Amino acid sequence: MARAIRRRRSKVRTTLARISDSTVHRLSKYYRTLALFNDQGIKTISSDLLASHNGVTAAQVRKDLSCFGAFGRRGLGYTVVDLKKNIGTIMGLGKTWRVALIGVGNIGRALLEYDQFHLHGFPIKIAFDSDPTKIGKEFHGIPVRDVANLEAEMKREKVEIAVVAVPMSTAQNVVDRLVAGGIKAILNFAPINLTVPPGVFIRHENMAIEIEALAFALTNPDLVKGD
Amino acid sequence: MARAIRRRRSKVRTTLARISDSTVHRLSKYYRTLALFNDQGIKTISSDLLASHNGVTAAQVRKDLSCFGAFGRRGLGYTVVDLKKNIGTIMGLGKTWRVALIGVGNIGRALLEYDQFHLHGFPIKIAFDSDPTKIGKEFHGIPVRDVANLEAEMKREKVEIAVVAVPMSTAQNVVDRLVAGGIKAILNFAPINLTVPPGVFIRHENMAIEIEALAFALTNPDLVKGD
Repeated sequence: MARAIRRRRSKVRTTLARISDSTVHRLSKYYRTLALFNDQGIKTISSDLLASHNGVTAAQVRKDLSCFGAFGRRGLGYTVVDLKKNIGTIMGLGKTWRVALIGVGNIGRALLEYDQFHLHGFPIKIAFDSDPTKIGKEFHGIPVRDVANLEAEMKREKVEIAVVAVPMSTAQNVVDRLVAGGIKAILNFAPINLTVPPGVFIRHENMAIEIEALAFALTNPDLVKGD
Repeated sequence: MARAIRRRRSKVRTTLARISDSTVHRLSKYYRTLALFNDQGIKTISSDLLASHNGVTAAQVRKDLSCFGAFGRRGLGYTVVDLKKNIGTIMGLGKTWRVALIGVGNIGRALLEYDQFHLHGFPIKIAFDSDPTKIGKEFHGIPVRDVANLEAEMKREKVEIAVVAVPMSTAQNVVDRLVAGGIKAILNFAPINLTVPPGVFIRHENMAIEIEALAFALTNPDLVKGD
């Protein structure tokens, strides 16, 4: 009885709590696991199985999902198709987002070639650069506009997410202009921390994160899962 | 008593268990948190604080660390400098690894410019391409060799980790040649699953993963932590 009260109280607390980046990353992973299971025609999944597929505890899975209210039923697990749909709705993955790229250098051109943005609902619609030899051209079908007109063009194209791939030295200035132009979500590839005001979301992509997992594997070959 | 036995039994099991990718990623994050605290002169850290900095439960932190034996003391927390050193040793982060890049296209050139590999102990020493206009040149001080001589050059340079940034269509062939040349660790940027034999470690870098967190933030602005 005391336990039931404690559980109810903790549920109220998590409903009000804000969600950490790590929880959001795990929800992305759960979503992919559920999509995989759904494609294979599997109807239900336990928190244990969802946990072991993602290298976390079942308690962590239940805690992550409890933030959004109760899915699934004790002893029966989660219905794959429903949980996938619910997480997709929560994550905003059911729609196509309008994305702009700022900086058509090496990383920028690599991103224009990269189909993972397009495939997951984040197609790059428009690109910006300051280089006159690039402005007016198309790269992989995406037109490059003059970054001088950034704010006006972003509004005209109704851009929702900006991907920043400019040099470190100009990244903060570009971000300030994006914010002034009303952009609320920025994905930054420059290896530098950038400041945004409250209400604007920024995420930093670190292209070197996975190499540490390889150092671990080489140091501990017997401890790494062969999957 | 039954609980104590259960706990002891579970400890034996985790000591023998293999470590998931997610645990390794979390260890990387804990390492960075500890480095930050150490730089600020903080001597001890509780599992609660290490957990809240990384968006996981304290139970998850204790479970992750327990895989490697017992650090810290109940009620006293962990000694920052010792735990950092232990995780660094476990992760193989104390040394400089010899890294080669295969593919000097857009992603490859972006990686040669990117200082995060160098800063974390993974400097790119040598690069390979099949394009005769690139072979023999240097990009950001890194010489580009002919990929035709891949296996021999990798051995001569004692490369430990290969970063693959070639087009999808040739990625499996390059990986097969790396494996034949004795490489045990591969970081792949091509958006395709590649096959390696047992004993070879491969990790896939997905440059689009953070954008889903932005979609979540835009969909649930009130739920996202403002940090």
